[in-house]
Amino acid sequence: MTHHKPADIERTSMAIIAAELCQRGITIPPDREAVVRRVIHTTADFDYAANLTFTPQAVARGVEALRRGTAIVTDTNMAKAGISRPALSKLGSQVLCFMAEEDVARQAKQQGTTRAAAAIDRAAREHPGAILAVGNAPTALFSIARHLEAGLRPALVIGVPVGFVNVVEAKEELLEVCRRLEIPAILAMGRKGGSNVAAAICNALLYLAGDLTDPAARGWQ
Amino acid sequence: MTHHKPADIERTSMAIIAAELCQRGITIPPDREAVVRRVIHTTADFDYAANLTFTPQAVARGVEALRRGTAIVTDTNMAKAGISRPALSKLGSQVLCFMAEEDVARQAKQQGTTRAAAAIDRAAREHPGAILAVGNAPTALFSIARHLEAGLRPALVIGVPVGFVNVVEAKEELLEVCRRLEIPAILAMGRKGGSNVAAAICNALLYLAGDLTDPAARGWQ
Repeated sequence: MTHHKPADIERTSMAIIAAELCQRGITIPPDREAVVRRVIHTTADFDYAANLTFTPQAVARGVEALRRGTAIVTDTNMAKAGISRPALSKLGSQVLCFMAEEDVARQAKQQGTTRAAAAIDRAAREHPGAILAVGNAPTALFSIARHLEAGLRPALVIGVPVGFVNVVEAKEELLEVCRRLEIPAILAMGRKGGSNVAAAICNALLYLAGDLTDPAARGWQ
Repeated sequence: MTHHKPADIERTSMAIIAAELCQRGITIPPDREAVVRRVIHTTADFDYAANLTFTPQAVARGVEALRRGTAIVTDTNMAKAGISRPALSKLGSQVLCFMAEEDVARQAKQQGTTRAAAAIDRAAREHPGAILAVGNAPTALFSIARHLEAGLRPALVIGVPVGFVNVVEAKEELLEVCRRLEIPAILAMGRKGGSNVAAAICNALLYLAGDLTDPAARGWQ
């Protein structure tokens, strides 16, 4: 085996991804390249080149928000664990997940909804201008759509749950609402997505925001 | 939107996955069904029906080990965050990740290796009979292969890193070693995998081990 430094491996991986996108005749608009390539890097799944859908200026608005230290609220501790600590700390940002909080569980029970939906209610109350990153729960997307209609204006909505029931519909509804209300959004249409995809999108934006596009700058060995 | 309980959603999702596997003419051996279906449930990616490779008795050996309370050692905090706490606690098992430990970083630096490889050295020393679950670092797989040749006998090796550099080779080398030495192993061949896939495989085994195959039994609402 040849020994490679992690930063070299990442650069080589990104070059392979760029070359294969080209071979497949896929052109990604330059402002979206960093996000699409990082999601493919995380999944080795080129379907995301077609699935990932951006409203106009979504990447720029997300990057601006992170440069202001805007918090990310996510729906799984797994996505939270996957988001880069060094990048968050460089920008003075943070990532929050309310899924395991007692008041969220209580509210979900009282209102006959899911914890994911109740966690969005709490995010809307306490962090109305946050970046909302959903990698797991389609009910969180329906909840976001309802809050947007009621006037909530998050900095960016990242909606990439994975699944077979209600997931496709939730993404389509949310995309329609985001387009109509001009809310910046990045969605993975179709069934695919996940906490790893949510974290990858957040990391791509954080690296852009913190000028950490070179992996060596992120403290890789 | 129709409200569904999470347990119902999971059952419906698993039924859709089973039906689509059938439509695609894919038959999964019964002992491997729970693992393959859960990975597809986590990724919405049917490629895993072909990519996931099992040595004989790998599932049975993993389940037996978890029933004895054997620890899982993983290479990312993201995989750790994705493994079911209720299931671990029912079985008296635990999940460990050494990637962020100072001594691991120090050893990696001293030996000119990666933290992932140094973390496997520590796992081999402190938890020689553990389940090793690698979702990220191909260098961890090379390290495991070396330890197996030197006599290490983990209860099960789960090797599902994702990536474009050294990943395919690392999995092929490890599969050859596991087959030759009769070490139980579950690998995702090719480029695909990830921390989410590692966590999904661990969860499938934990649910089998804890008779938690019905999602309602896992404390879903």
